[in-house]
Amino acid sequence: MEITPGPLLQTINSPEDLKKLPREKLHQVCDELRQYIIDVVSVHGGHFGASLGVVELTTALHYVYHTPYDQLVWDVGHQAYGHKILTGRRDNFSTNRKYNGLSGFPKRSESEYDTFGVGHSSTSISAALGMAIAAKYKGEKDRKVVAIIGDGAMTAGLAFEGMNHAGVSDTDILIILNDNHIGIDPNVGALKEYLTDITTSPAYNKVKDEIWKLLGKLPVGTHFTRGMAHKLAEGMKGIVSSSSNLFAALKLRYFGPIDGHNINKLVDTLKDLRGIPGPKILHIITTKGKGYAPAEKDQTKWHATGKFDKITGEIYKKNYDLPQPPKYQDVFGHTIIELAEKNEKIFGITPAMASGCSLKFMMEKMPDRAFDVGIAEQHAVTLSAGMATQGMKVFCNIYSTFMQRAYDQVIHDVAIQNLPVIFCLDRAGLVGDDGPTHHGAYDIAYMRCVPNMIVSAPMNESELRNLMYTAQLDSTKNSFVIRYPRGEGVMPEWKTEMKEIKIGTGRKIKDGQDIVILSLGHPGNFAAAAIRDLKNDGLNPAHYDMRFAKPLDEELLHDVFSKFTKLITVEDGTVKGGFGSAILEFMNEYNYHAEIKILGIPDHVIEHGTLKELHHECHYDAEAIKAAVLEMMRGKITVSASIAG
Amino acid sequence: MEITPGPLLQTINSPEDLKKLPREKLHQVCDELRQYIIDVVSVHGGHFGASLGVVELTTALHYVYHTPYDQLVWDVGHQAYGHKILTGRRDNFSTNRKYNGLSGFPKRSESEYDTFGVGHSSTSISAALGMAIAAKYKGEKDRKVVAIIGDGAMTAGLAFEGMNHAGVSDTDILIILNDNHIGIDPNVGALKEYLTDITTSPAYNKVKDEIWKLLGKLPVGTHFTRGMAHKLAEGMKGIVSSSSNLFAALKLRYFGPIDGHNINKLVDTLKDLRGIPGPKILHIITTKGKGYAPAEKDQTKWHATGKFDKITGEIYKKNYDLPQPPKYQDVFGHTIIELAEKNEKIFGITPAMASGCSLKFMMEKMPDRAFDVGIAEQHAVTLSAGMATQGMKVFCNIYSTFMQRAYDQVIHDVAIQNLPVIFCLDRAGLVGDDGPTHHGAYDIAYMRCVPNMIVSAPMNESELRNLMYTAQLDSTKNSFVIRYPRGEGVMPEWKTEMKEIKIGTGRKIKDGQDIVILSLGHPGNFAAAAIRDLKNDGLNPAHYDMRFAKPLDEELLHDVFSKFTKLITVEDGTVKGGFGSAILEFMNEYNYHAEIKILGIPDHVIEHGTLKELHHECHYDAEAIKAAVLEMMRGKITVSASIAG
Repeated sequence: MEITPGPLLQTINSPEDLKKLPREKLHQVCDELRQYIIDVVSVHGGHFGASLGVVELTTALHYVYHTPYDQLVWDVGHQAYGHKILTGRRDNFSTNRKYNGLSGFPKRSESEYDTFGVGHSSTSISAALGMAIAAKYKGEKDRKVVAIIGDGAMTAGLAFEGMNHAGVSDTDILIILNDNHIGIDPNVGALKEYLTDITTSPAYNKVKDEIWKLLGKLPVGTHFTRGMAHKLAEGMKGIVSSSSNLFAALKLRYFGPIDGHNINKLVDTLKDLRGIPGPKILHIITTKGKGYAPAEKDQTKWHATGKFDKITGEIYKKNYDLPQPPKYQDVFGHTIIELAEKNEKIFGITPAMASGCSLKFMMEKMPDRAFDVGIAEQHAVTLSAGMATQGMKVFCNIYSTFMQRAYDQVIHDVAIQNLPVIFCLDRAGLVGDDGPTHHGAYDIAYMRCVPNMIVSAPMNESELRNLMYTAQLDSTKNSFVIRYPRGEGVMPEWKTEMKEIKIGTGRKIKDGQDIVILSLGHPGNFAAAAIRDLKNDGLNPAHYDMRFAKPLDEELLHDVFSKFTKLITVEDGTVKGGFGSAILEFMNEYNYHAEIKILGIPDHVIEHGTLKELHHECHYDAEAIKAAVLEMMRGKITVSASIAG
Repeated sequence: MEITPGPLLQTINSPEDLKKLPREKLHQVCDELRQYIIDVVSVHGGHFGASLGVVELTTALHYVYHTPYDQLVWDVGHQAYGHKILTGRRDNFSTNRKYNGLSGFPKRSESEYDTFGVGHSSTSISAALGMAIAAKYKGEKDRKVVAIIGDGAMTAGLAFEGMNHAGVSDTDILIILNDNHIGIDPNVGALKEYLTDITTSPAYNKVKDEIWKLLGKLPVGTHFTRGMAHKLAEGMKGIVSSSSNLFAALKLRYFGPIDGHNINKLVDTLKDLRGIPGPKILHIITTKGKGYAPAEKDQTKWHATGKFDKITGEIYKKNYDLPQPPKYQDVFGHTIIELAEKNEKIFGITPAMASGCSLKFMMEKMPDRAFDVGIAEQHAVTLSAGMATQGMKVFCNIYSTFMQRAYDQVIHDVAIQNLPVIFCLDRAGLVGDDGPTHHGAYDIAYMRCVPNMIVSAPMNESELRNLMYTAQLDSTKNSFVIRYPRGEGVMPEWKTEMKEIKIGTGRKIKDGQDIVILSLGHPGNFAAAAIRDLKNDGLNPAHYDMRFAKPLDEELLHDVFSKFTKLITVEDGTVKGGFGSAILEFMNEYNYHAEIKILGIPDHVIEHGTLKELHHECHYDAEAIKAAVLEMMRGKITVSASIAG
């Protein structure tokens, strides 16, 4: 389906083209840009609300700044669709988030306008500051760097660390705080309340201005001496100028707040700011989903979307004849409630992934026992550790890729003390169209090397429930990882009775001959499919679902290695130091020899695409497992055939 | 040597004993406590300045709060010596930081008064908040939780994340900001300047109070109407009460600053605060090293110390007849300057480890090209990434254990984009008396699983220089880890000419028969010592210094495996997923079979002790390597003997 950009947008192939337009045309550019984003996303899906919210800002930035010489650093990057469309990627834009197509995020290899690859939040200030320091060192005095960051991303510690340095840096960095009061879920925390304070009643800056005016009019007389007036003015100056504002306290000159949908005001302001030296912050107020009523109304739902009817706002859903398996996310979300109803020690904590990981169900039902702490992975983990010292059983749900941000807290605050915190690593393995910044590829490796840590992965819904049940038992004394992928499991009838799993035990899926497959987690289903298919080839591999990458089921493995000398391991994690390597370590320890094929995510950056495409590319889908079995059994088959012949 | 505590301190075996004393005796308790710390540390060494600075605070806290029911969470914990002495560990205190002795940090397994294990900074607010939330949930209304955190630790993102949540939490948490203007090195950043602003001229709180007083005296007349006065008062209220202070902006009730060495004032204030509900922060001003003049004067030098003469302040140094090898730290510190003098793209960045890692030399010599960004590991890495996008060659020096805190930034901001940032991981491997929180045990595993990442370790000073030289070449396009241990190398004549090392190549140390040792990094010297010793046993192992855990030297390994079937790997990192596992992966890929013994840090928490003690415990010192060779060769020796017989 051909999507035609508006007449002005058609003529813009780079920011140079945009700059040629007179100011009064920018409104139209914004309208057409917004419409084009709606048109494309309604047909192809993608992130949505964030890009609509910064249409005016994006247009103003490229109109005023000399990109790509001036450098724009978009935080997170899911709001950069307009930026991509204005910087030469309009006609490719329908390939967004598709295999071999444009990335859904800024990406250095894609365009010189994409100054810094993103996906995770809160990196922009530090990265931009690095660029600004380099520019200054190189004597590029006219080069400007702008970081554009949302209020949601501002709560992460990294953003604070960046501001703390930026404020005392001798650079001209501009930070634009895009304040739309929401991340994916509504924002939480003191910063959010503070931003609301200074943007609402009493209109903060107006009051500040008025006070200054009033100070000039203070009458001096008997009751109110010149000395007193001086003291008051000095005191006010100290307070209002350097401490009155959180950002000013961090030595950033604070401007705003201004309306982020007023293109003229934005252009004027940015022109002024481009010329003002020193580190500074511009606070703009925008509406996520701006210009598309359903998205403005339900911002969480429209953060990212599949295809939809742009007239009615109906998001298309697939219809199925048969009951479908649930998402692992929802199994987690419902099961934690089930468990918490029986075990009053259970808490649920997530850093800004309440909808994504489905903790929102518990947050609604048990608001005193389930929290979203905002984008603050480090805090989420250490908070969980603090609660665990008091006997609480905390399920801390963080996407695998974001757990990277709390790695020290996992080691230092949880594992070294062996506190029984339960880490549910959602979106483990490949995540699909979000791509390399979001793949949960490393967790098996980076968790397995941590002492005291149990590392588990369920093969299906029932196993997830059993692992969750096991993890919250008082008899479970260790720090406990349960990793599972994004999306659907395999059991339409998922609400099975929960049973304890003995820690460090796998399970036999089936007996077999000549070759054995050891799988970890959901890819066990790919192995099972491959095995069904291999029947036609006259092959009958055995299959074990190992469930634990650590501790390994040594009894099971001794049995396996006593019977088999051909073995395939399957996991949805990196092959460097992952589950397969754990098996090699076991073999080495006990001096077993066997031919092993390790299937998993190869050791290079995996780009975006559908899960099916990526599993295929990474050679651990059913087809690849089948091929591996056939290859390892080639000699065997030939021999059998020749014997039969 | 017997160290006798003062007469009052002798009677205090728990905070209960302290509470029995009348207020007027607390001065003397503080004096005796301070003296006891000086006496013990002068004889045994240890952290020093921080504990002296909080003698009054420690005494006041245990006097006012009902510990251990009330919970004190010490941040970092190197200031907790007084706390340990007052909580039943006085007579053991001379075992501090010694093998099987007391930990230098609070540790849950050591005492019920140690509520949370620490060592890394900035965790206290989150951990304390977790405790406070749990207490509230359990209905323990009278239970209070206090986090004690320094101004240095406040700059880390985790502390900010914790405050952002604490401020809106419905708990009674008290955060005590112990403001001594210094971490290990002098603090940097906007927060530091802000704290200086509000504690110095104009005395912030006094001004605030005076303004309030003045507001009450404002004369109303023709020029200054009642309406204007009202506006002024309202505006002031808004600004002064909710936004005038960084912490107040984060919804923490702010108290202070007060003199942290005034025991009476502290006791009064804490008594008041104990009864004030809601989240709050008390800002106290202290002097690091208080009461010991040399430590007050040179706070960085006296942060931690070896044994010293407490009268003269002379820190004892060993005297040697022969020139000694330098510390790896100093080799780094001098070599980066040498390189930077020739390559103008080189920068040096460290997060608050300027003295420890010796970047301070470059910071003094090239202040525009070397920064300490404060305790902000995440920012240090992403800042380096930003600079690398502009062609800079950044040596980002972070202790191995602290690099855990920037793991996501390493993956997401550096490696996925394959930016050529050079990570120098100081204090890799076991660190000795700082113990489990500080061991750099996991980096080989957690770096090796990251795509694009080169992971290297020098065996000696010359190799460190060569790796640094290689890493900064334009031809080196990858993200690059160089890990090396704390302390001395092996080359008194270390200033060798620098040479490029082909990436992914090891080097032969010596040929040999029957068995081969593959070592990574400094423990190669232990292997060499073992081999020298094994001559007496008639054994002659071959030895290769592999230099790279990733990429492996495949050519070398093919050669090794074509010759040897007995092999020992040695590394100072965890055996789960580390260098040894990489060798197993290689063997598996190429279907080599051999008997392998993997020596390294075992997969459990390693406590503190001297390096010698810990290397011995972990079985990878020269003695252990020798024993491993003998064991693997036992059959061989017996056979030879019987043949000879």
